[in-house]
Amino acid sequence: MDKKIQIKGNECPVARSLEIIGDRWTLLILRDMFKKKMKHFQEFLSADEKISPNLLSNRLKKLTEYGIIENKLYSEHPPRYEYTLTPLGRELGPVLQSLWDFGKKYTQS
Amino acid sequence: MDKKIQIKGNECPVARSLEIIGDRWTLLILRDMFKKKMKHFQEFLSADEKISPNLLSNRLKKLTEYGIIENKLYSEHPPRYEYTLTPLGRELGPVLQSLWDFGKKYTQS
Repeated sequence: MDKKIQIKGNECPVARSLEIIGDRWTLLILRDMFKKKMKHFQEFLSADEKISPNLLSNRLKKLTEYGIIENKLYSEHPPRYEYTLTPLGRELGPVLQSLWDFGKKYTQS
Repeated sequence: MDKKIQIKGNECPVARSLEIIGDRWTLLILRDMFKKKMKHFQEFLSADEKISPNLLSNRLKKLTEYGIIENKLYSEHPPRYEYTLTPLGRELGPVLQSLWDFGKKYTQS
């Protein structure tokens, strides 16, 4: 992973990270991958927060373009993909963990 | 801080955290407070990402309602407020730090 993701025009590392993952749906998809080991489009759709198919598809595409996740065709008829974190994507573990820790300790449902 | 923030209807700690801070502008404001020690409305407006006054005002209000930040009147004519992190807000440090670390290590401008 010596190749860095290029986010033009922003000198701040936090702002650059947020260009990639600074939206609620993206972070919920990453949670589903990290914590719930989800891999399939239908599984992400079934999460409690009820992401729409369009949004899900848009966010998976964006994460794939950034190299955070990758997809593999696992069924041809009908075509179905499996989404997994890349080694780069797994480096986002501490972000997800810190959100989990804060939520666990300082919020309740 | 024995009183937890109540986020109804969500069993997932990550999702509850994201209800509070799961949007780019909110996280940029928190960055300005944590990393740049900003306190004043005009300072937040001047950050590189150019948040609009309406959005800024909306996000500061939301963070205040959740008890993440607090404001203090520091000038009466005209009325001006100073915004600071509460002890609860400071517990978000690891979230900001993990975003900084990822951005620093794996992205470039």
